[in-house]
Amino acid sequence: MSRFPFTILSFSALLAFFSGAWAKTRPPTPPADAPAAAAANAQPGPRHVPPRVIPVPGDVSKQLQAFIRMPYPPGVLSPPPKTAAEWGALNKRFAAEWTAPLADLRKQLHVSVEATEIAGVKAYLVTPRDLRPENVNRMLLHLHGGGYVFGGGEAATSEAIMMAGIGGYRVISVDYRMPPDFPFPAGLDDALTVWRSIAQTIDPRNMAVFGSSAGGGLALAMALKAKDEGLPLPAAVSAGTPWSDLDKIGDSYFANEYVDNMLVAWDGWLGGAARLYANGHDLKNPYLSPVYGNYKNFPPTILTTGTRDLFLSNTVRVHRALRRAGAEADLNVYEGMSHAQYAGPGMPEAREVFEDIARFFDARLGR
Amino acid sequence: MSRFPFTILSFSALLAFFSGAWAKTRPPTPPADAPAAAAANAQPGPRHVPPRVIPVPGDVSKQLQAFIRMPYPPGVLSPPPKTAAEWGALNKRFAAEWTAPLADLRKQLHVSVEATEIAGVKAYLVTPRDLRPENVNRMLLHLHGGGYVFGGGEAATSEAIMMAGIGGYRVISVDYRMPPDFPFPAGLDDALTVWRSIAQTIDPRNMAVFGSSAGGGLALAMALKAKDEGLPLPAAVSAGTPWSDLDKIGDSYFANEYVDNMLVAWDGWLGGAARLYANGHDLKNPYLSPVYGNYKNFPPTILTTGTRDLFLSNTVRVHRALRRAGAEADLNVYEGMSHAQYAGPGMPEAREVFEDIARFFDARLGR
Repeated sequence: MSRFPFTILSFSALLAFFSGAWAKTRPPTPPADAPAAAAANAQPGPRHVPPRVIPVPGDVSKQLQAFIRMPYPPGVLSPPPKTAAEWGALNKRFAAEWTAPLADLRKQLHVSVEATEIAGVKAYLVTPRDLRPENVNRMLLHLHGGGYVFGGGEAATSEAIMMAGIGGYRVISVDYRMPPDFPFPAGLDDALTVWRSIAQTIDPRNMAVFGSSAGGGLALAMALKAKDEGLPLPAAVSAGTPWSDLDKIGDSYFANEYVDNMLVAWDGWLGGAARLYANGHDLKNPYLSPVYGNYKNFPPTILTTGTRDLFLSNTVRVHRALRRAGAEADLNVYEGMSHAQYAGPGMPEAREVFEDIARFFDARLGR
Repeated sequence: MSRFPFTILSFSALLAFFSGAWAKTRPPTPPADAPAAAAANAQPGPRHVPPRVIPVPGDVSKQLQAFIRMPYPPGVLSPPPKTAAEWGALNKRFAAEWTAPLADLRKQLHVSVEATEIAGVKAYLVTPRDLRPENVNRMLLHLHGGGYVFGGGEAATSEAIMMAGIGGYRVISVDYRMPPDFPFPAGLDDALTVWRSIAQTIDPRNMAVFGSSAGGGLALAMALKAKDEGLPLPAAVSAGTPWSDLDKIGDSYFANEYVDNMLVAWDGWLGGAARLYANGHDLKNPYLSPVYGNYKNFPPTILTTGTRDLFLSNTVRVHRALRRAGAEADLNVYEGMSHAQYAGPGMPEAREVFEDIARFFDARLGR
């Protein structure tokens, strides 16, 4: 199979560009063999899990099976780049790689993309050929993934193209500024600038915000900040496997470590990206780690993740935070799926994800 | 901490009565050490996961942490009993153990329990002191857990007491017949017999069916069969970590193997209970493995599981089956939780689970 090049998915996969090999750079694991694990698990304490071989599940589509079967992205656990130049070089490579297949994707889904600028912020207007009649006065705001470091430029549009093509919505995808040059809160500021601007011409009750991974975290952070500042709120939010806790806090960072074959582990580039983006700010700041936000009166939110997702806890913790605050929240967990593996219009589960989000939006957005 | 004795939880824990030690009886694991795993994961194929130590998460309640910290139930991976006498002896021990704390639980939650018989089927009428005014004309039907083999008799009432006390509902808990003497479909028949009978005096639109583990599977199977037979349907269903696929099919049977500290693995007593209950019937029969059911026009259903649950896939697969059929479904996944670990009225997450179910019912049941 060919690895479908979907920004939110493949930026880890493409860490092939890192030079270090996995075995060489993996942090040392405890020498827990099966009998040692058995002895440890006979006592109260942390869980000792013996080495295992987890088969490719047979109860998902062939296309998803192909994703589940994929090797770890080579180099994903290498130490992150150390200098701005190293980050920049890596970003350029990813951008080129992720942008290459977009022409085909646009064609397949009958979507056109136009670069624009909104209140000084770069963005893309993503328009489906088949704009659904009920969506004529609606607009979606998209925030791309890529660990807050990668996935900008035209690459930003890949998930927006999926949503526009499958859901029949017009989408504005924000090409927000990123580190090393523009760490937190530049990206969040850009998202809010665009939101403020479009909310002056389109009724915010006819709009929703969505994104996956870092884009899911940013969608939550943006809505939290809009709420705090008394701005109009979107009618709905979709946070796909949101990076809701930048720190290595959350059980699936551990339980799904080495099980998720997209992100594989927090240690490595992921923690590096967190530190680069946060730029010294407290990782518990809810605009950085929105799981710590106040969700009272938050818009209805749909959440998507997978059973093998390193961000499973990032997702379900936000779901519970929303519920505890009395907000409407709809959680969806896909069988066998690792981080943001809902990619490719030919994968039934990918279509299902975007159709579910579209249905959720349709029931909550004004016309 | 004391292990709170909640039927749906502790029947595996109490397999301490088994004599075999974990290390002695564990099926052999592949000799995958870290470098071998790294090499394997550089190729497409099954996931090779190195040995790991998963810490107790700090982002859940102290009470849940205590459950997460608990050792494996000694003997949980022993070969299952071989004869009816061995199963019977084990069942008797569990029944005694699980029944012992119920008097305290009833007192704490101000719930009274009365043994009764409905259309020839043994059952318990579970009544809260504080029956909420909106629940006066409502009734819940409860089906207990215990792998279809354990948890009968008074032990059947533990989850019903939680629901009655926290939700303020009257509950009928069915003490359905079980193997070895009464394998499938005896338990399902009993559940349906009680349902048919009470639906003659209480408006089915004022009723819901709920249960966890085997009880969650049975709740789904009962509603599926009621639908197939054109019987009146309950207004809502709650399936807590339902045993929806009796076979070892579903990714979390593998990915959460040895991570879940309640069930630990399908291999061992769990698979034995499946075979004993099925009694030669095809495990893909939807009345045995309700994940294979037809959910068109199924009642609104709330589902509950945890990130470490061996039945995470059993739960999310049903959620997707419901959605794909256009049914209303609400999925809830609790951070760090293993199978049915929502126990003990003092655990905030347990209260949250039953309050969420009560809220879901309240919005859907007639009065």
